[in-house]
Amino acid sequence: MTRTLPQPATEAIDLVTVLQALGDPVRLELVRTLAKEDEPRPCSIDKYDVEISAPTLSHHWRILREAGLTTTFVNGRTRWVELRREDVHSRFPGLLDAVLA
Amino acid sequence: MTRTLPQPATEAIDLVTVLQALGDPVRLELVRTLAKEDEPRPCSIDKYDVEISAPTLSHHWRILREAGLTTTFVNGRTRWVELRREDVHSRFPGLLDAVLA
Repeated sequence: MTRTLPQPATEAIDLVTVLQALGDPVRLELVRTLAKEDEPRPCSIDKYDVEISAPTLSHHWRILREAGLTTTFVNGRTRWVELRREDVHSRFPGLLDAVLA
Repeated sequence: MTRTLPQPATEAIDLVTVLQALGDPVRLELVRTLAKEDEPRPCSIDKYDVEISAPTLSHHWRILREAGLTTTFVNGRTRWVELRREDVHSRFPGLLDAVLA
């Protein structure tokens, strides 16, 4: 059974928190990678071209999720992550487009 | 004689650094205030509705300037600050509009 980890409602997504979450080179790269896909992507470290440890990657996924930028799906020991593109766009139109351009 | 403090050239403005600079509630408010004006604004603390000390305000002006978001003009003991709206827009189209909306 797949569940989602806690995340802010769309209307609770905060601009400063989003900017802080995006203001990190690894997280920005993760968001860019997610933006290329329409489906959730595995969270596992071997799927990303980043030179960080697995716990550090988990930390970045948490920051992105708690900022409202991503949804994390969990099924047993497997996690996937998806960009909340429409939610972020409805809250801050043009922001993700500008950052991902 | 008015001079400007050092700042990055437009092509050297870095997205992560800009996002970090904007990802602070006081700096975001300062940028919003500057965005309402077409002229440089005084840097002095009494001109801003912020509950911080003068040195902290100076620190925020420095972060914004070094990120390439603002130009600081100096004449004797007086300083003014101006948003580099066109420079930032040419580097990251739509970003400031999205953040300031």
